[in-house]
Amino acid sequence: MSNITKKVSWSSRGDELGPVGEGTPLLNGSEQPRHSRQFSEGGSLFQIDRLSTVDLEEEISAEEESARGQPKEIPHNSKLLSLKYESLDYDNSENQLFLEEERRMSFTGFRCLEISRWLICGLIGVLTGLIACFIDIVVEKVARYKYEAIKQNIERFTEVGGLSISLILWAVLNFSFVMVGSILVAFFEPVAAGSGIPQIKCYLNGVKIPRVVRLKTLVIKVCGVICSVIGGLAVGKEGPMIHSGAVVAAGVSQGRSTTLKKDLMIFEYFRRDTEKRDFVSAGAAAGVSAAFGAPVGGVLFSLEEGASFWNQMLTWRIFFASMISTFTLNFFLSISHNNTGDLSNPGLINFGRFESENLNYNLYEIPLFIAMGAIGGVLGALFNFLNYWLTIFRIRYVHRPCLQVMEAMLVAAVTASVSFTMIYFSNDCQPLDSEHAEEYPLQLFCADGEYNSMATTFFNTPEKSVRSLFHNQPGTYNPLTLGLFTITYFFLACWTYGLAVSAGVFIPSLLIGAAWGRLCGIWLASLASAGSIWADPGKYALIGAAAQLGGIVRMTLSLTVILVEATGNVTYGLPIMLVLLTAKIVGDYFQEGLYDIHIKLQSVPFLHWEAPATSHWLTTREVMSSPVTCLNRIEKVGTIVDVLSNTSTNHNGFPVVVQVSENDEPSKLCGLILRSQLIVLLKHKVFVELAGSRLTRRKLQLKDFRDAYPRFPPIQSIHVSQDERECLMDLTEFMNPTPYTVTQETSLPRVFKLFRALGLRHLVVIDDANRVRVLNLYKSKVFSRKLKIVTMILFRWLDW
Amino acid sequence: MSNITKKVSWSSRGDELGPVGEGTPLLNGSEQPRHSRQFSEGGSLFQIDRLSTVDLEEEISAEEESARGQPKEIPHNSKLLSLKYESLDYDNSENQLFLEEERRMSFTGFRCLEISRWLICGLIGVLTGLIACFIDIVVEKVARYKYEAIKQNIERFTEVGGLSISLILWAVLNFSFVMVGSILVAFFEPVAAGSGIPQIKCYLNGVKIPRVVRLKTLVIKVCGVICSVIGGLAVGKEGPMIHSGAVVAAGVSQGRSTTLKKDLMIFEYFRRDTEKRDFVSAGAAAGVSAAFGAPVGGVLFSLEEGASFWNQMLTWRIFFASMISTFTLNFFLSISHNNTGDLSNPGLINFGRFESENLNYNLYEIPLFIAMGAIGGVLGALFNFLNYWLTIFRIRYVHRPCLQVMEAMLVAAVTASVSFTMIYFSNDCQPLDSEHAEEYPLQLFCADGEYNSMATTFFNTPEKSVRSLFHNQPGTYNPLTLGLFTITYFFLACWTYGLAVSAGVFIPSLLIGAAWGRLCGIWLASLASAGSIWADPGKYALIGAAAQLGGIVRMTLSLTVILVEATGNVTYGLPIMLVLLTAKIVGDYFQEGLYDIHIKLQSVPFLHWEAPATSHWLTTREVMSSPVTCLNRIEKVGTIVDVLSNTSTNHNGFPVVVQVSENDEPSKLCGLILRSQLIVLLKHKVFVELAGSRLTRRKLQLKDFRDAYPRFPPIQSIHVSQDERECLMDLTEFMNPTPYTVTQETSLPRVFKLFRALGLRHLVVIDDANRVRVLNLYKSKVFSRKLKIVTMILFRWLDW
Repeated sequence: MSNITKKVSWSSRGDELGPVGEGTPLLNGSEQPRHSRQFSEGGSLFQIDRLSTVDLEEEISAEEESARGQPKEIPHNSKLLSLKYESLDYDNSENQLFLEEERRMSFTGFRCLEISRWLICGLIGVLTGLIACFIDIVVEKVARYKYEAIKQNIERFTEVGGLSISLILWAVLNFSFVMVGSILVAFFEPVAAGSGIPQIKCYLNGVKIPRVVRLKTLVIKVCGVICSVIGGLAVGKEGPMIHSGAVVAAGVSQGRSTTLKKDLMIFEYFRRDTEKRDFVSAGAAAGVSAAFGAPVGGVLFSLEEGASFWNQMLTWRIFFASMISTFTLNFFLSISHNNTGDLSNPGLINFGRFESENLNYNLYEIPLFIAMGAIGGVLGALFNFLNYWLTIFRIRYVHRPCLQVMEAMLVAAVTASVSFTMIYFSNDCQPLDSEHAEEYPLQLFCADGEYNSMATTFFNTPEKSVRSLFHNQPGTYNPLTLGLFTITYFFLACWTYGLAVSAGVFIPSLLIGAAWGRLCGIWLASLASAGSIWADPGKYALIGAAAQLGGIVRMTLSLTVILVEATGNVTYGLPIMLVLLTAKIVGDYFQEGLYDIHIKLQSVPFLHWEAPATSHWLTTREVMSSPVTCLNRIEKVGTIVDVLSNTSTNHNGFPVVVQVSENDEPSKLCGLILRSQLIVLLKHKVFVELAGSRLTRRKLQLKDFRDAYPRFPPIQSIHVSQDERECLMDLTEFMNPTPYTVTQETSLPRVFKLFRALGLRHLVVIDDANRVRVLNLYKSKVFSRKLKIVTMILFRWLDW
Repeated sequence: MSNITKKVSWSSRGDELGPVGEGTPLLNGSEQPRHSRQFSEGGSLFQIDRLSTVDLEEEISAEEESARGQPKEIPHNSKLLSLKYESLDYDNSENQLFLEEERRMSFTGFRCLEISRWLICGLIGVLTGLIACFIDIVVEKVARYKYEAIKQNIERFTEVGGLSISLILWAVLNFSFVMVGSILVAFFEPVAAGSGIPQIKCYLNGVKIPRVVRLKTLVIKVCGVICSVIGGLAVGKEGPMIHSGAVVAAGVSQGRSTTLKKDLMIFEYFRRDTEKRDFVSAGAAAGVSAAFGAPVGGVLFSLEEGASFWNQMLTWRIFFASMISTFTLNFFLSISHNNTGDLSNPGLINFGRFESENLNYNLYEIPLFIAMGAIGGVLGALFNFLNYWLTIFRIRYVHRPCLQVMEAMLVAAVTASVSFTMIYFSNDCQPLDSEHAEEYPLQLFCADGEYNSMATTFFNTPEKSVRSLFHNQPGTYNPLTLGLFTITYFFLACWTYGLAVSAGVFIPSLLIGAAWGRLCGIWLASLASAGSIWADPGKYALIGAAAQLGGIVRMTLSLTVILVEATGNVTYGLPIMLVLLTAKIVGDYFQEGLYDIHIKLQSVPFLHWEAPATSHWLTTREVMSSPVTCLNRIEKVGTIVDVLSNTSTNHNGFPVVVQVSENDEPSKLCGLILRSQLIVLLKHKVFVELAGSRLTRRKLQLKDFRDAYPRFPPIQSIHVSQDERECLMDLTEFMNPTPYTVTQETSLPRVFKLFRALGLRHLVVIDDANRVRVLNLYKSKVFSRKLKIVTMILFRWLDW
């Protein structure tokens, strides 16, 4: 697999693509229109492609060219959908083995399982909290050394001249940290780049992103985020916590690690997509909770992104994991701050207490908040627009690891230089206040007893800058300082997001918003009469931060709750909600949310909440994949191997049929079997002919399927001799005898709902018996994740 | 319909039971075992009944006896399930009319619909907030008059003697208010009794409780709750707000009121169960939000109780309604308090600010909190246990409205007398403090400048008592006072819940818990060293309140968030969660939650979250209703009328079949038609023979179905002449051609999931074609809400 396909996606290793992903074909949504219809309003053509005909040619030739060492523009079209991603199967395959196990299990057995689920969630919470704690302490300590060193250096050279040496020191320090972080990410685990939130969104949505929940990814992510934050990039360490929590959950719940080659032989029951996804939800929630000290927000994040079916006990467990996570973080941070037992640091970012009396808002401020929400929406859309084109550019031209590392280093150097220049030319001097002591006050050219105000925003970790924008006394910042800072930081943050470093976009967004929000507050206060104190700049900084963040990420309920929990005060619930609502509406008018843009750019078959409103005229017949590959209940091994090896129809589920009569009458559906199950069967050579000798061998059990989960070997790695090809396999025991079915006439929204609500991966389409008398009766058609793809294309056509 | 059946259930009007509910047969879960199997662990017999054979005899004879004026013990068995309740249909019937409408609708049309949904949610929020505001202000004003009058009276008689006159005044005042409230409820709208939360839980779960969302119910509820709170009963006005919000939502979203006979001809699109239930969720959330100032808690309440499928936009709309509701209440209360624009009264109950420094908890307090949670669980279970037997008693003996009114009046008198006695014999005098001024301080036999501390808890609205328990200075209450108060109020509240008055159980629970929690705090403080301030009694009062409430209602995530929002401080998130978790686990060990007990006592076919863990050995074949009544696609009117009139098989959905061949071969499924649709068709005489003359008449449209929604006339009210009985009806256009289907072999958990996740009312069971060659091929069986009943019985056997 070449570098090119590597760079098109989050997950670069072609050799680990799993059994189906030979090649990473991109599916063009507009090719080979099979059904077209004039769309009533827009007049645009609606085109539905035929999915079984994937043309691999173009991809291969592109690879060959790059192999010849000619880096070339990669043709990337965000209307394509990648066939590389597989779906999670949220539906249990209720085959005989499964049912037997469930029926054998006693009530106590189920109770034990339930207790283990709680235990695992507790463990997820503890581990996620510890990781957050580790990141926080390391960043804190190392950043302190760095800033102290630079500060001393600057102080030394301010009077004698030669500040360029300080600049170089600063730039080199940033440079080196970012280089380490970037090399780790670009060369060792590209999927650890960015905040990881889009990937987790996809996972919770039901799309398996390769290697996204591996231990190695976690290690690289943690190291990477430490490097990039210390490296002074315009990034936060909160987004990556969500990814980290998810990895912890996926690891703990499976009771083993493939990276470490260690199987603890526990929690084997949970080795399937259904259970794993539930735990990953809990992990993501625990991550949010640790990042923002927002346990309820974490639960809502998980539900908003992942829930297709709300289950009370599951929600309660997720909440438990969240609570434990924030509690663990809080407790260990209190120890590290020599203040054991004081539980006042619930998250990595703490907005500080908003308690003073004048922070109450009044009715006439509501329109102002809404206006700020609109500004946030516009600025957010601009941010996303710029980042969109930057990402397209990166996909086309910056796709080699070394180029990516170089870009990251360039950004680090530019960030340091720009910050330094801004500080250098700023003449906003403020008196040093013993109460609101800045952590690293830079005197520079200010008079004694004063410090450079611009430096407090740039010369600090972004979390601290946000907090000082929220809480510093009115008058701490000069409007010009804030304006310049906003503009500079906006472009720096926009450039930074999408680099090959582990980094989140939450804190930069909050910082940009807080800066212009505070600016609004200062401006409003200057409009108001002298004695009025209603326009507290800190309050407006909070509103601005909410508006900017909402404009960029477009999250709704969960973000409101996260922000409310981070401020520790429910008073601002209504204004924050109104601001986020406005920002979302305004932003959506121009552009999608940042995460959705990146998901789209990675060609992920992401399933939205509802089928498009105007899709009622589409029926299953028009979107299903056809003809379908069926297997007989007792099938020849050779046929099965051939079917699995056929790359042009690389399905993951096959309907099992039975012949009713000898003549031409079509066969009837009797079950559904998955590729993964067939692979395990072939590996264990469960052939009818060997049944006699199998009496000595043990019977195939569910455990064998679970041991192979989740990395089933590809069909190529299984050797079947020519003699064995003539053997027969009896699928009765292993197929799911009761797959969900629909008829051909079912409308798309109806099928979509079934798919979404039950988290299906395959849906069998059966003919309507009353229409076809003999020929097609019960000839089943599989309606697999290809449905997702078709539906997505449909979405695209509506959205773009 | 006699009084007896009236009293067995929330909904008493036999004459309004709708088309199906002729008679309210109770279905005995243990009769006629069709399939029994020794249950592996418990050894108890698992029995599944045959649902099509409902024996109506017993019921009728009971009615006759009561008609003869002999009030008799009503045989009530909570293992019965009432056939009276119908399910909501969360699945759209996608017939030709519906699809045509959807396909005709443009993108703009859908956008307009979306905007109307938002508008309706805003309106729901505003109206719910206004109702809450109205209740609050009226209760406040009238209660002030009442308490002032009694206070003056007591002060007059304290010195001269003759306090018994004050007692009589107090008792008579309470007496009269409660009488009015009780008469309204018992004689005019029994479904308005209680908090309404169990009814709304059922509605959101998908069970239609007759008359629960009518305007009349709302009016009675509001008047009733005002009377019972002013009447000094141990009740709160918060629970009924949830019911009120739901009624508002159901009314507003339909754009008409049948009670007022007014149709605004708007929002016609929303006249179906799917949309209505979504709006009712929003209304319930708005109610919670107005009651507790907890918009996020409201959303979570709705989701926890009702969501089967989480939809992002719907959640966001629900949140919007909640926010608007709390905001409206806040705004109008600020006007009424002459403090316009001060938004600090977000809910009916306000726990006050928990802000002082010493209210932070420390790590070593966590075990104490957990222990308190356990106490709350035990006390809650005791409360539920007593109330359970009391309710059984009431169902058996107190089933006439006049008896109910008398009981309510008795409780009112006893409450007043007990309170008076407690105050009279209390010698807990506290100095009058100008800062924490009590609203109605009673001096009684205390020295000048002092007041009777017992009187602050009893001689006040319960909301104010809760607040003073949370916030009064340490030392305000004597431990003996608190102990006596806890015991008295516990029994009073337990007796009160279930009376024929509109009243909630939230505030009494909080009050009991706050009292014993404060007692714990005082006790702990006495254990600790003198100078220690960690055991703030207010903090322990809060924890105790949470424990007691959690022990009684057993809500989880939503209750945590509600309490956190009501305290306005997220610091207590973790302790409250731990306390609620412990209370739930301990309480569930003994007894179900209070609402679940009442739901069970009303024999509602309530559908839980998941199928019982050990139900995998059950298949659809064993739980479906069979034989099923099918209709032909072109059916004789006479047959349809007969089928609909047949009370022994009063199904609400009928599979439509088509004959394949002339001979004995069974017919094939081609759709599903609902009773309500057939009724409308019969009413409009859509007969094939009249098709010619119908050219002059307009074609039947979706509007005709919507106009009849939700109160379709019973079949008896439709007159079909003998000639017309020979006509034919073509159902093709009106049936749902693509109902969801399963095969007979599907396991119960799988079917349950489908039912629960999609909110189905009917599920067609088709034969497995490969098993039956000719005879039963495609002979469909309807698997309607009877599934619910069977599943419920299953649950019962597992639970009890």
